[in-house]
Amino acid sequence: MKLYSCWQSLASFRVRIALNLKGIAYELVAVDLDRRQQFDGAYAALNPQMALPALVLDDGTVLTQSLAILDYLDEACPTPALLPADAKGRARVRALAAMIACDVHPLTTPRVQRYLTEVLHVDDAARGAWLRHWAAETLTAFEAQVAGHPSTGRFAHGDAPTMADICLVGHAVFAVNKGLDLASAPTVKRIFEAAMALPAFAQAHPLAQPDTPEPLRRNS
Amino acid sequence: MKLYSCWQSLASFRVRIALNLKGIAYELVAVDLDRRQQFDGAYAALNPQMALPALVLDDGTVLTQSLAILDYLDEACPTPALLPADAKGRARVRALAAMIACDVHPLTTPRVQRYLTEVLHVDDAARGAWLRHWAAETLTAFEAQVAGHPSTGRFAHGDAPTMADICLVGHAVFAVNKGLDLASAPTVKRIFEAAMALPAFAQAHPLAQPDTPEPLRRNS
Repeated sequence: MKLYSCWQSLASFRVRIALNLKGIAYELVAVDLDRRQQFDGAYAALNPQMALPALVLDDGTVLTQSLAILDYLDEACPTPALLPADAKGRARVRALAAMIACDVHPLTTPRVQRYLTEVLHVDDAARGAWLRHWAAETLTAFEAQVAGHPSTGRFAHGDAPTMADICLVGHAVFAVNKGLDLASAPTVKRIFEAAMALPAFAQAHPLAQPDTPEPLRRNS
Repeated sequence: MKLYSCWQSLASFRVRIALNLKGIAYELVAVDLDRRQQFDGAYAALNPQMALPALVLDDGTVLTQSLAILDYLDEACPTPALLPADAKGRARVRALAAMIACDVHPLTTPRVQRYLTEVLHVDDAARGAWLRHWAAETLTAFEAQVAGHPSTGRFAHGDAPTMADICLVGHAVFAVNKGLDLASAPTVKRIFEAAMALPAFAQAHPLAQPDTPEPLRRNS
């Protein structure tokens, strides 16, 4: 299968982690968000929403939206599972994942940042404050959901990584990148470090991708 | 079970529809967003994220995040199903639902509108333009995904309502409320009308709730 991905796209990061955890080989097709390649005809024909990621299956089926792709991969390749075995546990993991994928990530995407700058004429300092505000709010809210919760283990839910951790690590990378200190959310920090110590996570890191610009690129 | 809901909350609307479709009786507990009751101690203790909805099961388990709640309800009460029977169909429905729940709804919530007004000092006209911009963008993108697609039927996927329709109707209500004309997205308009003709959808409408202010309230 082919994954249309960008090193900067945190939604693409999620799918790379899932593919790595499942041991699914994939061809990475880089889409350069800085050059706005997601709006190019070829990609727009594939995904009319012109957003990343897209996963193209071997039969040509195009899957979009990172959460939907994670669910598909978990159904198509159940081991290791990205969701717990019990319904209430699955609901908790899905809710934790949605706290990132629904409540904060959409506020930080390039299209939103462009609107702030180009339409609302928000200056760089205020745009940075916007990003840090939502990043910090989610760190606090996520910490409140995992700290001391009986289902929190080595990872956000139990001792194996789930969709919750897959979403969380991208947010933690983003928050640190925006200058926040994860020490304010110690459970999040511990889970983030446990997850990033796994090769499946480390190899999916935004700075370890084939399309990561050379000066930033690092080995996973 | 108890649903903490607000007539204005489009995420609560989704869960009300699902409960109605499944025929699950529930007690509605109104949380007044205008009076910021989601920040009150009692609700904050229930859901530290201080967001709606929350569904409290009879054993006291608190479920949050509308998409996670939809999945839980579909697992706990499989008929009628909110997802298609095949994995690729499920991926399509989940992606359509995420286009609403992840890509547009988070940009329109009270916390974001407050930040625009109170921190960025965006005036009412520009705040309205912000809401209409994202509403229109999603109408166009959703239309592109459903118009002419072989899996689109009476509803967004096939001839029975799914999570995609549950999310779409809230967005359509929002878009119309902001002055957009659904005629620009004819497939969306057709699906919206087919869905709202079902009692499970009509009875869940924001204007048909016990906490809808009297001057706005209508019978479903």
